[in-house]
Amino acid sequence: MPAASDPTSFLAPEDRRLLDLAIEQAELGWDEGGVPIGAVLARGGEVLSVGRNRRVQQGSAILHGETDALERAGRQPATVYKECTLYTTLSPCFMCAGCALLYKIPRIVIGENRNFSVSEALLAEHGVELVVADDERCVDLMDRMMTERGEIWNEDIGE
Amino acid sequence: MPAASDPTSFLAPEDRRLLDLAIEQAELGWDEGGVPIGAVLARGGEVLSVGRNRRVQQGSAILHGETDALERAGRQPATVYKECTLYTTLSPCFMCAGCALLYKIPRIVIGENRNFSVSEALLAEHGVELVVADDERCVDLMDRMMTERGEIWNEDIGE
Repeated sequence: MPAASDPTSFLAPEDRRLLDLAIEQAELGWDEGGVPIGAVLARGGEVLSVGRNRRVQQGSAILHGETDALERAGRQPATVYKECTLYTTLSPCFMCAGCALLYKIPRIVIGENRNFSVSEALLAEHGVELVVADDERCVDLMDRMMTERGEIWNEDIGE
Repeated sequence: MPAASDPTSFLAPEDRRLLDLAIEQAELGWDEGGVPIGAVLARGGEVLSVGRNRRVQQGSAILHGETDALERAGRQPATVYKECTLYTTLSPCFMCAGCALLYKIPRIVIGENRNFSVSEALLAEHGVELVVADDERCVDLMDRMMTERGEIWNEDIGE
């Protein structure tokens, strides 16, 4: 159980559990030498896939946490995506936001948006429900990324 | 040389050559049983990569023509993308448009936008230069796709 002072204690238990799974993926990515961003695609609490940024691990320009999760979920009909929530440890870049819009994913739970936030207005305009957890572990992972692997982070966001 | 009546004869010869290369990729994708959309990433006329939609071929949910081309170009610094033109046989979906925005690709040459167009306003808002060729071969490929493989096309755009 989160402590009463936990700023994310407003999260529903299911969202907390699935965001934690995305954070596990982010931590795994960090331990692999990569960009610590993880994601989960879930439908009604059932995990369809987990993913993490693979820039370093696979030399990939397009496998961010969210796109990696979508890719690992495989080919799905539109009816599946429309019942999904996408969990991501960091506010989505335009590519990952666009991927959610392409598949009309109606809801995104975002670990944190202090270190990066570009697409939330676009997503909201298209009716996507956004829940920002402001999770300290997510913030800490990105703080470390920017401090210790800043050059890779800049590459990851085209800066 | 294109005939004087060719509606795409306004294209610069370099753009014509690189769009043709994207069309070759689209045709290859069609012959493989896939979605006939191809793309090329080029810098100053030099081809960095070619790509095509791999939904059918690789069971992929994220390898559209444009993202496949970006992936095949490998990890590149921001300075490279900022000098690139992205050629695509069909107007980009939100994911592929978002990918171009992520990497701040300044210019996109679009084969056609009659059969699909969702992201051009967004791209233009962000200052991306768009050139629409209205190329008959691109239109014909998508017409065939929608007629003969309509279910896969719907899956590809989350419909």
